[in-house]
Amino acid sequence: MPLPQQAENTELLEQALAALAEEAPERIDALLAGLHAAQVADLLESLPPEARTQLWERIAPGAKGDVLIEAHGEVRRQLIDESGPEELVEAVRRLDLDALSDIYDELPAGVVEAALRAMDAQRRSRFQTVRRYPDDVAGGLMDVDALTVRPDVNLHLVLDYLRRYRLELGRLPAHTDAVMVVGLDDRYVGRLPLADLASLPLERKVQEVMDREAAAIPADTPAGRVARTFEDRDLVSAAVVDEDGRVIGRITVDDVVDVIREEAEHSVLAGAGLDEEVDTFAPALESVRYRALWLGVHLLGVLVGAWVISHFAAAIDQLVALAVLMPVVASMGGVAGTQSLALVIRGLALEQVREGNRWRLLKKELAVGALNGLTWALAVGLIGSLWFDNAKLGAVFGVALIANLLAGVALGTVVPLALHRLRIDPALAGGVILIAFTDAFGFFVFLGLGALLLV
Amino acid sequence: MPLPQQAENTELLEQALAALAEEAPERIDALLAGLHAAQVADLLESLPPEARTQLWERIAPGAKGDVLIEAHGEVRRQLIDESGPEELVEAVRRLDLDALSDIYDELPAGVVEAALRAMDAQRRSRFQTVRRYPDDVAGGLMDVDALTVRPDVNLHLVLDYLRRYRLELGRLPAHTDAVMVVGLDDRYVGRLPLADLASLPLERKVQEVMDREAAAIPADTPAGRVARTFEDRDLVSAAVVDEDGRVIGRITVDDVVDVIREEAEHSVLAGAGLDEEVDTFAPALESVRYRALWLGVHLLGVLVGAWVISHFAAAIDQLVALAVLMPVVASMGGVAGTQSLALVIRGLALEQVREGNRWRLLKKELAVGALNGLTWALAVGLIGSLWFDNAKLGAVFGVALIANLLAGVALGTVVPLALHRLRIDPALAGGVILIAFTDAFGFFVFLGLGALLLV
Repeated sequence: MPLPQQAENTELLEQALAALAEEAPERIDALLAGLHAAQVADLLESLPPEARTQLWERIAPGAKGDVLIEAHGEVRRQLIDESGPEELVEAVRRLDLDALSDIYDELPAGVVEAALRAMDAQRRSRFQTVRRYPDDVAGGLMDVDALTVRPDVNLHLVLDYLRRYRLELGRLPAHTDAVMVVGLDDRYVGRLPLADLASLPLERKVQEVMDREAAAIPADTPAGRVARTFEDRDLVSAAVVDEDGRVIGRITVDDVVDVIREEAEHSVLAGAGLDEEVDTFAPALESVRYRALWLGVHLLGVLVGAWVISHFAAAIDQLVALAVLMPVVASMGGVAGTQSLALVIRGLALEQVREGNRWRLLKKELAVGALNGLTWALAVGLIGSLWFDNAKLGAVFGVALIANLLAGVALGTVVPLALHRLRIDPALAGGVILIAFTDAFGFFVFLGLGALLLV
Repeated sequence: MPLPQQAENTELLEQALAALAEEAPERIDALLAGLHAAQVADLLESLPPEARTQLWERIAPGAKGDVLIEAHGEVRRQLIDESGPEELVEAVRRLDLDALSDIYDELPAGVVEAALRAMDAQRRSRFQTVRRYPDDVAGGLMDVDALTVRPDVNLHLVLDYLRRYRLELGRLPAHTDAVMVVGLDDRYVGRLPLADLASLPLERKVQEVMDREAAAIPADTPAGRVARTFEDRDLVSAAVVDEDGRVIGRITVDDVVDVIREEAEHSVLAGAGLDEEVDTFAPALESVRYRALWLGVHLLGVLVGAWVISHFAAAIDQLVALAVLMPVVASMGGVAGTQSLALVIRGLALEQVREGNRWRLLKKELAVGALNGLTWALAVGLIGSLWFDNAKLGAVFGVALIANLLAGVALGTVVPLALHRLRIDPALAGGVILIAFTDAFGFFVFLGLGALLLV
């Protein structure tokens, strides 16, 4: 049985496809009216490109900005390509500044300039602060609308300030769960949670009740580290400070959730050589570009294995059972290595695997490989002996399997550590390298031993 | 260069190892004093099991509960096993109720009973509410300490209520960013954000200013769906309601972040047959249990491929080049299939792949497979022809490659969809099934064509 909301989504998709096919704009509009931006973006991503264009044209210009932000990579690019410059300016000019900064580089140059001209001076200068940082550090994730108060005022005054702010601007910044407390030169000294403001006597001074322990995040902190900090300390928001400790913005948990989600998608896709930006429903021709390259890289790896085999053609010629069993040796080494690889990649992401424990990890993985090797060597040795009625073949099969399982776990541990050190993404490159080696080594050991001992 | 906090973590690990080796308890205590629970758990997980025991003994009993919550699967079990019953009761009795519920099943029976007896009646009854739901639905994730107010009171009264609450209990519930508004029978009617409470005139009534749009989450909603709702709507907290719409708790974003992180770990590890609970530094003997099974499952898959090869022993005997090239055909099909598999698994997780677009996706993947097949068939055909100076062999090589790439993308699309329908985790089982098929089919097509046309 499908889950309730999934049924709803499926229905939504079908309704949208039907309305688009029948060119019934009023039904499309009615459909769109009930959805929030993330749902519209989901729907667009589930549609084929032509239907996507049709639906996009029915979305109100003011609402398009939020939908663009929620849409991913290639889909977002398609939508931008299909929009006129005035339409884009209208779509993006009221966006949160960190959101605008995220899609800044994807927008045509004229659009960005027009959107900047339409901003007031304060908003423009704040935007320039955000732009100073790349997207993948705290400074690029932050909102620049942090509310700040001085430590020596009382809570009554803070409430007054919030009421005046709201009267003037209509609302407090999104996800305000605290105001930041700043000293001279806007330097960060702590934070005052709204929960305290709403539950403590109003005569108390900010400095008596503020949370001095709450960490401020340096603007150049990598996004992954920011996410770990939020997770470990269960934060909802945190101040972002520049190199002098001045508060220049704040990060809220919804931005962090996006970071974690992207990491999760990356870990699913990178192992297959895919980018998390990739559009599941992109036309086949576009998808081929990415994927052909990855197949080519793998082909090089497998050809090394084939080249190894070719050196043992004489042995195979004499004992064809070698050809039958050699893929088993090669692929079992790959599978054992993939297990070590997955553990080390997770350990690196969670920062559990460090300088101080790498050797211990390698020793442990080798022990696991040896134990698994012994277990399965007995099994495959028996299988090989009985199948081909050749005990010596079974023994060679088992010994080669142990050797390749050991090679697999050793490489599965060492390769990601080395790649991490070289600042190459182990999730992307680890698997290809591992499989190329375990294939070639598996063939070499099994056929080599076979040539020496069996023919 | 290591990142700053990583250096810090590495140093921490080294200091801990040194202090433990020298049996210097006061240095260990000084080290622990500066860390919060998640950091202590991280450190414990990075240590070998014996050092872990030593460190665990130095942690204050009252602090052990939070550390247990932050520790993962096997590490947590080790720590529980090594603690006495009184120590555990002391550790868990002040935990948040949803946290206590999470580790409930792992605690010895006597400990749970003693902890329940130590609770007052209200806390015990709330705990029983949480226990009614499994861990992986909204009811199992929720905190039961939601603050609720009536819609017909004014904001002044709400502030008074919060102040009294705090005076009595010392603090508001963690992550209170809003109070829930309930009507008769505790039925959910909306929420009042603290940001509104702190910035609107106090004479206003709750019902005039409350957010009626904010969704309440039914207690039986799966955790993954809860996470998607929080992400899409940028929520910090949401009310949880029972089947009658009564507020029985609230979910806060920190619980959601844990769900997303677990999903991310799952996606890295499941493909290698590992559980996200697995301890990276577990003793080799324990790790073998999990991993031997997975190798055995793979072995069955590869043996099917070997069995296919054995039927073509005569052909290989006559043309040993077939044995050299056959692993290339088999593994390229697996790689192409893995790409489709990764895309579909992501699409299913994000609910982009649905009833209405599955056929479109399959057609597109087949087109990608055909295009990639043609490209690389030309390349490998040429390689095969030149290498063995045999144009017919090259042609068979190329045709078999196209066939296996098509089989790979078709299976990579259909297998996860079918597994999802059968409620089997595609991330866990998809890869094994795919590789077993593409290996066997690749050998069959290439060797079959070879036997027919080349020998």
